[in-house]
Amino acid sequence: MRVVVPFAADQPKTRLGDVLAPAERRAFAHAMLTDVLRALREAGHDPEVLATTSLDVDAPTTVDDRPLSAAVNAVLDDGPAAVVMADLPLATAGTLTALFDADGEVVLAPGRGGGTNALVARHPEFRVDFHGTSYLDHRRNAEQVDASVETVDSFRLATDIDEPTDLVEVLIHGRGAARDWLLDAGIELVTASETGRVTARRL
Amino acid sequence: MRVVVPFAADQPKTRLGDVLAPAERRAFAHAMLTDVLRALREAGHDPEVLATTSLDVDAPTTVDDRPLSAAVNAVLDDGPAAVVMADLPLATAGTLTALFDADGEVVLAPGRGGGTNALVARHPEFRVDFHGTSYLDHRRNAEQVDASVETVDSFRLATDIDEPTDLVEVLIHGRGAARDWLLDAGIELVTASETGRVTARRL
Repeated sequence: MRVVVPFAADQPKTRLGDVLAPAERRAFAHAMLTDVLRALREAGHDPEVLATTSLDVDAPTTVDDRPLSAAVNAVLDDGPAAVVMADLPLATAGTLTALFDADGEVVLAPGRGGGTNALVARHPEFRVDFHGTSYLDHRRNAEQVDASVETVDSFRLATDIDEPTDLVEVLIHGRGAARDWLLDAGIELVTASETGRVTARRL
Repeated sequence: MRVVVPFAADQPKTRLGDVLAPAERRAFAHAMLTDVLRALREAGHDPEVLATTSLDVDAPTTVDDRPLSAAVNAVLDDGPAAVVMADLPLATAGTLTALFDADGEVVLAPGRGGGTNALVARHPEFRVDFHGTSYLDHRRNAEQVDASVETVDSFRLATDIDEPTDLVEVLIHGRGAARDWLLDAGIELVTASETGRVTARRL
């Protein structure tokens, strides 16, 4: 089965703009991609990158500048495939194996806010739509083509890194290139003594 | 093993104040507690509530008005126990069984932001501290008393409901009293057509 990691190479992670400059966002996004590719390889897969523009990465890369859903659906036109987002630096071989081992013709790993962070599509008619509450849309799309659906319950796969508060999760639970990148950039956990709430800040 | 569900009965869920009035927050917190107790029973346990003041709930209740960590540590003084937070309406029997079946002398289910949403403590010397990055503190506390640690990777257990954005998760992934309560209160998912971002709003 093809395993595809979509990657927006041109303007990644704009919502991290309060913490990271544009060049830093690109470097951090690349570090997260590295972590995802490594976890997929550790789980026994040969991932390929589906990028909006060409980029320097140690994996076979297809460039498709269409919007995410169209580019992924072009992959699904060719047969069964797994799609794993590039901003999941907490992913491990074990959590990804749970995704691939689940039984459904469509297997979904929900992200926070109604997103879909990873999926396996084994049904020939299932197609994706990543806009809005894609988790609900994907369930509905699967029902419409009579595909059985399984969901994978994983905090690691649910944690896509979009906003400054998400960096806390990378610093606490990450073990790879993305965490190292943050530490090298001087971004660390800060606990507010009164509330006990934790943020990730450049010291 | 005792299974304890701490519940702040007096002023629950203040961070939901922008969406819910005080009486509503109490009712919603109670609905979430109901969901957690039911999931624990479905998993074969006899949960008890550890409340800051007496309350009307269909479960044995211990009242302890000390701060959370002190009240939980008083339970741990009596022997092995599991602690499951009351604001986890996405918890299911399956996810809780994964928690109880894990091997460690200390088993932790991390919450977002470095929290600990559920734990099993089988080591006589392990004690809790829920302030700040309790997940990291609990790992450290376990190491200090030479207790083996396991972590449970669960989106459902990681999703404690504290803020308005969290209500989205209840509406999408919940199946019980908390979701019903929100729908009865007229709180529904709203998708911003341009960004595709989803919020929970009173219509």
